[in-house]
Amino acid sequence: MIYADYNATTPLDPEVRAAMNEALGATFGNPSSIHSAGQAARRLVDRARAQVAGLIGAAPDEIIFTSGGTEADNLVVLGAAAAPLGDGKGIITSAVEHKAVLDPCAFLQSKGHAVTVLPVDRDGIVDLAALEAAVNTDVALVSLMLANNDTGTIQPVAEAVRAAKTIPVHTDAVQAAGKLPIDVKTLGVSLLSFSSHKIHGPKGAGALFVRYGTRLAPLSHGGRQERTLRPGTENVPAIVGFGKACELACTRLEADARRVAESRDHFEAQILARLAGTRVNGGSHRLPNTSNIAFAGLDGEAITINLDMLGMAVSTGAACNSADKTPSHVLVAMGQSAAEARSSVRFSFGRDTSDEEIDRAIHWVVQAVNLLRGVRL
Amino acid sequence: MIYADYNATTPLDPEVRAAMNEALGATFGNPSSIHSAGQAARRLVDRARAQVAGLIGAAPDEIIFTSGGTEADNLVVLGAAAAPLGDGKGIITSAVEHKAVLDPCAFLQSKGHAVTVLPVDRDGIVDLAALEAAVNTDVALVSLMLANNDTGTIQPVAEAVRAAKTIPVHTDAVQAAGKLPIDVKTLGVSLLSFSSHKIHGPKGAGALFVRYGTRLAPLSHGGRQERTLRPGTENVPAIVGFGKACELACTRLEADARRVAESRDHFEAQILARLAGTRVNGGSHRLPNTSNIAFAGLDGEAITINLDMLGMAVSTGAACNSADKTPSHVLVAMGQSAAEARSSVRFSFGRDTSDEEIDRAIHWVVQAVNLLRGVRL
Repeated sequence: MIYADYNATTPLDPEVRAAMNEALGATFGNPSSIHSAGQAARRLVDRARAQVAGLIGAAPDEIIFTSGGTEADNLVVLGAAAAPLGDGKGIITSAVEHKAVLDPCAFLQSKGHAVTVLPVDRDGIVDLAALEAAVNTDVALVSLMLANNDTGTIQPVAEAVRAAKTIPVHTDAVQAAGKLPIDVKTLGVSLLSFSSHKIHGPKGAGALFVRYGTRLAPLSHGGRQERTLRPGTENVPAIVGFGKACELACTRLEADARRVAESRDHFEAQILARLAGTRVNGGSHRLPNTSNIAFAGLDGEAITINLDMLGMAVSTGAACNSADKTPSHVLVAMGQSAAEARSSVRFSFGRDTSDEEIDRAIHWVVQAVNLLRGVRL
Repeated sequence: MIYADYNATTPLDPEVRAAMNEALGATFGNPSSIHSAGQAARRLVDRARAQVAGLIGAAPDEIIFTSGGTEADNLVVLGAAAAPLGDGKGIITSAVEHKAVLDPCAFLQSKGHAVTVLPVDRDGIVDLAALEAAVNTDVALVSLMLANNDTGTIQPVAEAVRAAKTIPVHTDAVQAAGKLPIDVKTLGVSLLSFSSHKIHGPKGAGALFVRYGTRLAPLSHGGRQERTLRPGTENVPAIVGFGKACELACTRLEADARRVAESRDHFEAQILARLAGTRVNGGSHRLPNTSNIAFAGLDGEAITINLDMLGMAVSTGAACNSADKTPSHVLVAMGQSAAEARSSVRFSFGRDTSDEEIDRAIHWVVQAVNLLRGVRL
C-alpha cells in the first residue's frame, strides 16, 4: 500500500514505539500516587513535557497534555470564552479552520457569544485587514491556524498576532507541527495546540501551549492533574510516545521537510504535466508534504475510491468530516463552487514515502483519472 | 515491590499488550478515513466496542469511548445538565462520589444549578430515604457510584434507580468494573462510566454507557466520532487494549474475585488481630479487593511513606487527590473526624497479588505501624 494520507494520521515511528515500552510495562504507576511506583511514572511524564515543549520553544510548565488536538482546540475556544477576561466574550477565527475550532465557535455563537469568521482569499490566506477591523475590546480570543489540513496553506500568524494587539491569539498547529519549524516566541501566540499522532507519535495525546499568565477555564473537573486545566489520570504511554516523537521531529524536521518537499514537488509537476484540467489548491506558501489537486469535471471521492482499489490511500479532506458528503468548507471558503471543491483530492506524503512510491503514485493517479474520464489507455 | 494500590491503577495484562500491537503497528489508520487503511482501524474499534459492551450487558451502540473515567463522568454530569431535558437542570448525587462527579456538580452549582448531595451512613451507604425526598421534576440526573474507590463500599444502585422513578440514573462504575459482575439491565441505570486502566487495560481509554434514548450534550465539538458525543480521532491502541481487558475480565472476573477476596480477608483478619487500635472502614458489603484500615492515633500518610521505603505501594485514598493534604472526603462523609480519617490507609489488591506477597504485606504493615507507635520490636 502507498500511504499518502499523512495529514489524517501517521504511522508510529519505531523509536517512539520502543520508548513507550517502559510505560506499557514496568512503569505502570499512576503519576498522581505519592509512592515510588507513581513517582517513576511522574518522571516519565515530566521528561515528555520537556521534549514536547522543546519542539515549539516553550517552557515545560507551559505545556498542558490533552487527549488530542480536538480536545486542545476545544479547551482553548470554550475555555477562553468561559474564563474571566473582563467583558470580552467574543471570538475571531477564520473560515478555513479545522472543525475542532469552527464547531466550538458555532456552539458559543448559539449561546450568544459574538463570533467573527474572517474570510480568506483564493489561495486560502486570511484577510488581515478584516482581522484589524474586527479587533475590539469585546473579543476574548483570536484563533487562526498555522497551516491548513486540507491544502497545507500557511497563514501569516505572526502578522495576525500584531494585528490582534492585546487580544490573546491561539494557533491550531496540528498540521504544522513536525513539518515546519515552530517557535512560540517568534510567532508571539499565547496558545498553540498540536497532536501526537500527526507527527509519528501515538493517538491519544495532544498538547496545548499556554503562555505564562494566559487565563483559561477547564472543560472538565475532578482532579489536580495538568494544573487543574485537564483533570484525569495521565495517559502515560501516549504522553511518553508523544515526547519521543517531538524529540525526533526536532532533530529530523529540516531534512525530512526538504526531502518530502522534493518528492511532493515532483509528484505535483508530473500530475499537472500529464493530466489536463488539473490545478493545485492553496497557493505557493504551503506545507512541504501536502498537494491538494483539483481534477476538473471529476468527483474527488471517486478518484479516492479508485486509488484505494489500486492500493493507495488518499482523501478528499479532513478525515473527521469524511462521513459528510458536503464539499470541503476550506475550498468553498476560497471561493470555489461546490462542484470545483468536490473535484479535489488531498495527497499528503511523509517521512516514509519513498521515491519509488512517488513514481508509482503518479502512475496510479494518471491511470485512475484517465479511467474515470473514459480516456482509452 | 508489593503493589497494593490497584484502585489507583493496574499493570497492563500481557494479553492486552499483545492485542494492542496491531494498532501500534500495521493498523495505524485513522478510523474516520474511508480508505482501506482507515477501515481496518475502524474494524478494530468496532470489535473493542462489542467487547466493552459485553462486560456490562450493553449493546455496542450504547458505548461511547472517552479518554478515561474522569471525562466520562464529566460528560454525564455536565452533559445531562446541558441537554434539553425540559426544565430539569438539577443534579442529585452522594457525598462519597469521586471528585470526577463531585467537582463538575460543584461547578454546576456555581452556575446556578440545584445540586443535592445525599448523606451516607457510618458504613458509607447512601441514604435512600433522602434520595426519595429529593426527587422532583426539576432534577435532570441522579449520579450514584457503584462502589467507592477509597473504601470499596458497594451502593444500592438498583434500589436508587427505583427511588429515582423517571429521572435518569448514572453510576460511576470505575472501581466496580472488573471486580463485580455488572449488568446494566439489572441495575436499570441509564448511564454508566468505567475506565480501562483500572481493569488491567491501558491508560487513555474510558467508556460511557448511554442507554438508547438517553439525551446528553457533548463537552466538545468538531468531529462526527462517537455519535458526535465525543469528537476527535479515536485512541485506537488504547481502545483495542480496553476491549481486550474487558473480554479478559468477563472470563476471569468470578475466579479472580474469589481469590482476591480470600487474600484480602486473610490480610484484614491478620492486621486486626496483630495490631490494636485498628478498624476496617466501609462496612461488610465491599469490593473483594479493598481494605481501608484505620490505625488509631497514627497518620496514614506516614504509614504510606514507611511502607514505600520497605517496598510496598499503598495510598491514603484517591490518587487524584494525593496532592491534597485534607483528609478523605469519603471518610469524613461517613461521620469520621479529620484525625480519624487521616489515620486510614487504603490497601487494594489485584489479580497479580500472590499469597507470599500478602504474608509479606502483613509483616511489613505490622512492622511499620509498630515502628511509628514506638513499640519495641
